[in-house]
Amino acid sequence: MKIIVLNCGSSSIKYQLFDMPRQKVIAKGLVDKIGLKGSIVKHEREDGVKANLEGEIFDHKLGIEYVLGILLSDKYGSIKSLEEINAVGHRVVHGGERYRGSVRINDSVIDALEETIDLAPLHNPPNLDGIYAITELLPNIPQVGVFDTAFHQTMPKHSFLYGIPYSLYQKHGVRRYGFHGSSHKFVANKAAEFLQKPINELNIITCHLGNGASIAAVQKGKSIDTSMGMTPIEGLIMGTRSGDLDIGALFHIIKKEEIDLETANTLINKHSGMLGLSGVSSDMREIENAAADGNERAQCALQMYQYRIKKYIGSYTAAMGGVDAIVFTGGVGENDWVTRQNSVEGLEFMGVELDKSKNTGMRGKTMDISTISSKVKVLVIPTNEELVIASDTFEILDKGLDQL
Amino acid sequence: MKIIVLNCGSSSIKYQLFDMPRQKVIAKGLVDKIGLKGSIVKHEREDGVKANLEGEIFDHKLGIEYVLGILLSDKYGSIKSLEEINAVGHRVVHGGERYRGSVRINDSVIDALEETIDLAPLHNPPNLDGIYAITELLPNIPQVGVFDTAFHQTMPKHSFLYGIPYSLYQKHGVRRYGFHGSSHKFVANKAAEFLQKPINELNIITCHLGNGASIAAVQKGKSIDTSMGMTPIEGLIMGTRSGDLDIGALFHIIKKEEIDLETANTLINKHSGMLGLSGVSSDMREIENAAADGNERAQCALQMYQYRIKKYIGSYTAAMGGVDAIVFTGGVGENDWVTRQNSVEGLEFMGVELDKSKNTGMRGKTMDISTISSKVKVLVIPTNEELVIASDTFEILDKGLDQL
Repeated sequence: MKIIVLNCGSSSIKYQLFDMPRQKVIAKGLVDKIGLKGSIVKHEREDGVKANLEGEIFDHKLGIEYVLGILLSDKYGSIKSLEEINAVGHRVVHGGERYRGSVRINDSVIDALEETIDLAPLHNPPNLDGIYAITELLPNIPQVGVFDTAFHQTMPKHSFLYGIPYSLYQKHGVRRYGFHGSSHKFVANKAAEFLQKPINELNIITCHLGNGASIAAVQKGKSIDTSMGMTPIEGLIMGTRSGDLDIGALFHIIKKEEIDLETANTLINKHSGMLGLSGVSSDMREIENAAADGNERAQCALQMYQYRIKKYIGSYTAAMGGVDAIVFTGGVGENDWVTRQNSVEGLEFMGVELDKSKNTGMRGKTMDISTISSKVKVLVIPTNEELVIASDTFEILDKGLDQL
Repeated sequence: MKIIVLNCGSSSIKYQLFDMPRQKVIAKGLVDKIGLKGSIVKHEREDGVKANLEGEIFDHKLGIEYVLGILLSDKYGSIKSLEEINAVGHRVVHGGERYRGSVRINDSVIDALEETIDLAPLHNPPNLDGIYAITELLPNIPQVGVFDTAFHQTMPKHSFLYGIPYSLYQKHGVRRYGFHGSSHKFVANKAAEFLQKPINELNIITCHLGNGASIAAVQKGKSIDTSMGMTPIEGLIMGTRSGDLDIGALFHIIKKEEIDLETANTLINKHSGMLGLSGVSSDMREIENAAADGNERAQCALQMYQYRIKKYIGSYTAAMGGVDAIVFTGGVGENDWVTRQNSVEGLEFMGVELDKSKNTGMRGKTMDISTISSKVKVLVIPTNEELVIASDTFEILDKGLDQL
């Protein structure tokens, strides 16, 4: 079964063509700068053949038409006819409270997602654009929505509510939703497999550290808490997002800087985090280079990044009454051994013993980096959100389900 | 030495007359509804003689004149002449980054505090009003300022900075300051005394749970982190304050409710927390009664309150690499055994064993409520912020210091 996985951002589309259930990526690529000058498609086929095509791509529909054209082309293509495509799986950022799992898309799902735009005004509209485009271009092909929020819908009420008037939850849906759900779910399950234990006997903390970053407490396979909140701003310090911040400090900033709410939103989302702290970059490698060169702000930014992760690990261990495994994933989690080391340093009191010889320099593969005697296992597990989308799409179609 | 301790709020003055170093309270009381209709002074002398006096008290100076009049009066008084008063100690909420300890007040201190008004616009002005009033009424008597923020000035940079552009710290002092410092310091030191160990060998977590609430990580006697931030909004869920909240959720609330920043500030400070969640009250006893009667929102609010404390305990234990003692203080911490029990439930993994038979029903006295074998001691220690102010004032005068 051939499944296209789409991840549509405001000006980009990431795509992969999967062969399922073989879990094989036949082709993949990125449409970038949609609606901007110099739109570009970077395509790569499983045999290594690459294409870089430029064109004027005004919207997501045009972008997807381009992609389908490449997939069909003699030179770069992988299929002979669009009929070979069995399904499309979409990453959808926000499923609100309605979706606790992936769902086959129909008109009422689209209606529900349109109602959810308010909760994710930056993310859900381009996700919907992808769905509209496929509906027009491939009208007979089933589509599945896989939500970033779905895995966290198991959080109990005392985890997901905020300390604000209850009416704001009822009226406007103000609560913690959490994101990166596909990734947290994927690596938690991989961790259980790796440890050869049933996931419903394990407490796992999953640290998804990419440009966006979040951490989750996964008890018996279910997310019971996570650091991102109603929006992806809350929690860990990220590339350009602040993470946790005193609401009173925000009021102070708005007043002193004489900025409006939109500017404040941009400040917190785009100019904060590691970029704002270090003044160097939002990229961890560049910050680490600056720190190594003696840049004190870069050094402090790294300390803050790691300290925040450590505090969340402590917090979620307390929330679950103990932890069996801590998992690092995402670009930083998989590759940055210094961050891993410093984030778990001093956690011996709760049974964490890092094996520095295993961790040091280790990049990008599944590995246990704790000592043999460590009560809490520390694992690195590369994430694969696209594979989760392909797998969920396959499973829904294969079993003829409406929803997982 | 007779010392008056003053805690001036926007429409109230709490006062105590101490005999030091005997640590004896000779008289105490409250001036309430200053500048409002029906101002009142409630006074009590050490022998139990009480006075309830009404009058029109327009400002803090008039309020303090009233208090001095009562202290001198035949019927309710404790002194024969104002010359018996040796000093006045003031609670000052915000000392900014300048004050790491208590300080003898002179013109340059007053200038510095006036510059700090921006950081605590609600609290520092009435504190200053108290200082101005004493300067006029008792011009020759030394005054000392004791800051809520001072104890936390030992926090390292990676604890006190937020994940926002560094320039906002430099330009506007946007950082974590923390509050309730006198209380955290007092109970941490009492805990070390109680455990008969030097405080510089202990990691202590102090939970100050009153109508305002904060928690601190006290490593070797020094605060290295605390839950209140630049303002008292951040951290634990409080009577009417939200505590931690996603900045993105705030943006959403402001947009959907169509409110301005001032209204939002009031919403987060006055209508949130346990009041907003429960819809019942900001008073824990009333919420607990409602919960016992089956009110589900009250039940959930209590769970949230306790869960947040537990997560901070985990977080700060990780931050310090382990903990020796957890201390509960403040009105709720000292008296509410259910909250204590639920806040440490499930922390056995880190060596916490509550002795339920000791904890259950226990109110308002210093006590170890953990089992004999508990690796982490759980203590209840009544706080006494007024005594800290009296002691610091005494010490500064006794030793002829400018600053502690």
